[in-house]
Amino acid sequence: MGRVTVRQKVLRIRDGAVDERPDTLAVEEPLEIRLDGSPLTVTMRTPGHDFDMAAGFLVSEGVITATEDVLATRYCAGTDEDGRNTFNVVDVTLAAHVPAPDTSLERNFYTTSSCGLCGKASLDAVRTRAQWPVDGDPIEVEPSLLSSLPDRLRESQRVFDRTGGLHAAGLFDTEGRALVVREDVGRHNAVDKVLGWAQRTGALPLRGTVLALSGRASFELVQKAWMAGIPVVTAVSAPSSLAVELAREAGITLVGFLRGSSMNVYAATHRVQVPAELSSGA
Amino acid sequence: MGRVTVRQKVLRIRDGAVDERPDTLAVEEPLEIRLDGSPLTVTMRTPGHDFDMAAGFLVSEGVITATEDVLATRYCAGTDEDGRNTFNVVDVTLAAHVPAPDTSLERNFYTTSSCGLCGKASLDAVRTRAQWPVDGDPIEVEPSLLSSLPDRLRESQRVFDRTGGLHAAGLFDTEGRALVVREDVGRHNAVDKVLGWAQRTGALPLRGTVLALSGRASFELVQKAWMAGIPVVTAVSAPSSLAVELAREAGITLVGFLRGSSMNVYAATHRVQVPAELSSGA
Repeated sequence: MGRVTVRQKVLRIRDGAVDERPDTLAVEEPLEIRLDGSPLTVTMRTPGHDFDMAAGFLVSEGVITATEDVLATRYCAGTDEDGRNTFNVVDVTLAAHVPAPDTSLERNFYTTSSCGLCGKASLDAVRTRAQWPVDGDPIEVEPSLLSSLPDRLRESQRVFDRTGGLHAAGLFDTEGRALVVREDVGRHNAVDKVLGWAQRTGALPLRGTVLALSGRASFELVQKAWMAGIPVVTAVSAPSSLAVELAREAGITLVGFLRGSSMNVYAATHRVQVPAELSSGA
Repeated sequence: MGRVTVRQKVLRIRDGAVDERPDTLAVEEPLEIRLDGSPLTVTMRTPGHDFDMAAGFLVSEGVITATEDVLATRYCAGTDEDGRNTFNVVDVTLAAHVPAPDTSLERNFYTTSSCGLCGKASLDAVRTRAQWPVDGDPIEVEPSLLSSLPDRLRESQRVFDRTGGLHAAGLFDTEGRALVVREDVGRHNAVDKVLGWAQRTGALPLRGTVLALSGRASFELVQKAWMAGIPVVTAVSAPSSLAVELAREAGITLVGFLRGSSMNVYAATHRVQVPAELSSGA
């Protein structure tokens, strides 16, 4: 965990008192992901679970769907001024049966702009790439289980309490057991690390699971859930309009403002088992 | 402001009671920025101040530095299935004296990877592009002024209270007056909208100002502050390690965990005027 946090001297002002002391910061460093030796993307992330993050990114992009799609992953190149490996460049070797993605600049722009960048074009682009239907996933969850997830997520966050600076994403089963929890300065990275874990362990598609997010739910995060076949996504804070639209399109149950025993269910509400005596009052 | 929020039906669960009612969501839609007709980037943003956002992005990237660098900005192309303009594609026409940026894929990767993607390479890449030194900016700020900024920022947030889903970035003078406040589902977009306002109004470089952020301080946000010549950045939550390193490199005063009368100052602490009777106790 050495590279996940770093100590820095800081001037602390507290209710009129001033002192200087070391403070713990979440580490943010660039990670370059290469595919068969060619650069694919660079993202700012918290070091740790880098191989899973690279794999999860490829799952999100629809490049890989199974453990056997990846032949090898390794740290490569990348030395600092003292010649030490920075562990900030990861190369993924795809299996021969996996088509290399079109990484041209045009493709990156135009997958989302076929009708001039209305929200619908973005939804279309994701639908085209989604590998697994989730709208038929029969999972049902009780509100009390959903309410327990933010605390369970926080309990599994090893770094947040020391830095206050990390997002978390956790995958839970319907008994509320944490299958995997990952932290990162970038919320999309935390989800990619979860998806990469699933790809590596052969757990894709993630049927019957709940993805719990520590912050807000954006379009991009719901998209990642769909690409991994996750039927339920919960967020402590607000979802965006396009996140809700995509969840409805995909049939993903989207829960926001999950605080205490309160929550809003924005899409695929049928999976949330509201006790009969309550729903009759709706 | 019609496109900034949208109403959606939602299942609300509150302390055991269930009802269905409309809820207000922050709108998230893609924006494609074109430069002289060629696609440059696509980002998910909250509609509004789109021209400023495009200009601010170009300021962040070091492409433009002055009002006269942009000849014209307009909505182009981009119709939905009913033939209506989506207002999601913006084209910026640069003045003849402005060199077009190198937008090749390689350039986008390798500006940050000259020494194999250590954090230092990222700092180097930003330093090369920064137009204005900020380390000599003589601005001084009192802790009481800094403490007032989160509330002033919230007071100027028109959309947050209705959706709970927007980040804010505000530019303040040393009297605590808000020069401009912008909101967005993406925190980097909110800062770009502030920078674009500055470019359009001829306010660059933003000497003697304070940039207040509603959330965390990442490398990218400090980078944007540097590119606009802003000497002080405050954040309600934690900074990342690379945000602190970049602030020290640039000589930007970086304040984090700004809550009530408490704060941590991570870099260029000399601009925070600690009363003599307090600092002597440090």
